[in-house]
Amino acid sequence: MIRPSIQAMSGYVSGEQPAPGAKVIKLNTNENPYPCSPRVLTAIREAMAGGLQKYPDPLATAFRMRAGDVLGIDPDWIQCGNGSDDILTILIRAFVGAQDGIRYAYPGYILYRTLAQIQEATVDEWKFRSDWTLDDAFATANSRLRLAFLANPNSPSGTVIPANRVFELADALPCPLVVDEAYADFAETNCLRLVAENEKIIVTRTLSKSYALAGLRFGFVIAQPRIIEQLAKIKDSYNCDILSIAGATAAMDDQGWLIENRQAILATRDRLVLRFRDLGFETPPSQANFIWATRTDRPVRPIYEQLKRDGVLVRYLDYAGWGDGLRISVGTDSQIDALLALVEGMVS
Amino acid sequence: MIRPSIQAMSGYVSGEQPAPGAKVIKLNTNENPYPCSPRVLTAIREAMAGGLQKYPDPLATAFRMRAGDVLGIDPDWIQCGNGSDDILTILIRAFVGAQDGIRYAYPGYILYRTLAQIQEATVDEWKFRSDWTLDDAFATANSRLRLAFLANPNSPSGTVIPANRVFELADALPCPLVVDEAYADFAETNCLRLVAENEKIIVTRTLSKSYALAGLRFGFVIAQPRIIEQLAKIKDSYNCDILSIAGATAAMDDQGWLIENRQAILATRDRLVLRFRDLGFETPPSQANFIWATRTDRPVRPIYEQLKRDGVLVRYLDYAGWGDGLRISVGTDSQIDALLALVEGMVS
Repeated sequence: MIRPSIQAMSGYVSGEQPAPGAKVIKLNTNENPYPCSPRVLTAIREAMAGGLQKYPDPLATAFRMRAGDVLGIDPDWIQCGNGSDDILTILIRAFVGAQDGIRYAYPGYILYRTLAQIQEATVDEWKFRSDWTLDDAFATANSRLRLAFLANPNSPSGTVIPANRVFELADALPCPLVVDEAYADFAETNCLRLVAENEKIIVTRTLSKSYALAGLRFGFVIAQPRIIEQLAKIKDSYNCDILSIAGATAAMDDQGWLIENRQAILATRDRLVLRFRDLGFETPPSQANFIWATRTDRPVRPIYEQLKRDGVLVRYLDYAGWGDGLRISVGTDSQIDALLALVEGMVS
Repeated sequence: MIRPSIQAMSGYVSGEQPAPGAKVIKLNTNENPYPCSPRVLTAIREAMAGGLQKYPDPLATAFRMRAGDVLGIDPDWIQCGNGSDDILTILIRAFVGAQDGIRYAYPGYILYRTLAQIQEATVDEWKFRSDWTLDDAFATANSRLRLAFLANPNSPSGTVIPANRVFELADALPCPLVVDEAYADFAETNCLRLVAENEKIIVTRTLSKSYALAGLRFGFVIAQPRIIEQLAKIKDSYNCDILSIAGATAAMDDQGWLIENRQAILATRDRLVLRFRDLGFETPPSQANFIWATRTDRPVRPIYEQLKRDGVLVRYLDYAGWGDGLRISVGTDSQIDALLALVEGMVS
């Protein structure tokens, strides 16, 4: 009874989520290690006091106005979603039908493949060069291609394709390019301003990482209004709830919190990178809240396994045709100290 | 760039949502007029205290365990969603591909058609008889048919197809039947027990109506585990947030609240029905938290329009090939008194 294409697919496997209350240092799904802005909690309490029995604003107008102010974007260029996964789902359903094709830079966010499989679309993985840049052929047209994805900063590498290069690639592509900026608040640059310059450029954002709100589920897309109008037909009418709209709006309102949190994460990240390089790992230059660590002298999977036994969860990822590595989220300083102490014991 | 099928569709239009703070008696989208159980708010506050920076449990296990206890169902037969719209979206993507077909009883929930259009599927609207029963031909096979929908209690009528009749129809159908029980907590019967008797029967529920949590977005589906396993591939990994899981679990835990709230709504509904019939409206026997009111001696649209000018929003619905009417949510006693005073002035 289930569609054969669904039965045949294996489904996306997200990073392990330990049971609530488990004593684990969790560095495997790039969550922010710090609590969100206190203003978020105040706003949620106030929204609760207004009652939960009515439907939320289907357009999350309060958030779009505030985000528009902060980012310098007209609210009509923004659509909100139940996490950026919801946004990515809406985008692929808008642009990609059965037998159409998508392309994405590889290794990247594996969810793009799952979303394509659900649409019965074909997948064209385009490999990064060994220095995590992309060659011009990423933009090559073919008759099926309907949507391209680029996580930027990329996962698992944390590396960034500069905005001018993204513009070149998008301009050459025969289809829209989704620039998935889940980690852009940690980076030195982003592609927001490109959306106005080329209708084919669509940027997605999430509050899960940089605003420490993975548990609240809130993301958004920035695109030209003619596209936003069409995306509105696909989203569930009430895809964001009263509490998440209130919390996300307050988060966006507290840019001071964002700046401080970002500084703390980046300082810890830089310390982690230096020490990991000392310990013989290779790590590309990360502009995200995680690092990608590989090494050639010994397998890294046993390191992941030993860390897990010791109560530290990092992400072991093995990319077919590319290789494996450890993707490690930047935790608090004490979490990273605990990680480093364990790793030092294993490799030195 | 957008798929032609998406450009061609008009999109689902939900009931009007007045601006926050507007002085309106809102009887147009079947929300519960009373605040939710206080235990829900306590649970949300406790969940907030645990932090929002981590991802939620992807399987909403706490809710599934509690709902399983309350409803007498194994938790493995339950999947949760961001409102039952999310669940309906997941179901149609699991069963229905491009050029496949769906069927639904008409007039029913119009969203089924929108969901089919997004999948490029064909739609077969099967009309209720004039007494809101369904004839055997609802179950007729055709080569395209992949999924059938029955809102039960139905919207806009509020009427119920008895469980034994639902079983007969589902058994005869060549595809699964989604019994959309958004309003079942207000009814005298439901189809939950049928799920174990026939794998083709899938029941959906929401906490929006009977638990007064439309603003929180939480729904769930009950199906046999072989189906739930496949649905899990389609849902977004983290489709329910930390606060909604906590709130929904607490709501399910407070069955005393549900019973009292239901009694209040049903008493008000029965009073509304009697008075509307006195005033010359026809209303089928409702087992939901709304009534469907038509009349033959004069058009009802002007009544909707005058009520709106007077600050009372009801839903005017015009079904092609069937006719129009007013769908009126059961509010508090004082809201319904205000409605009745206005309507009496218009029709007597």
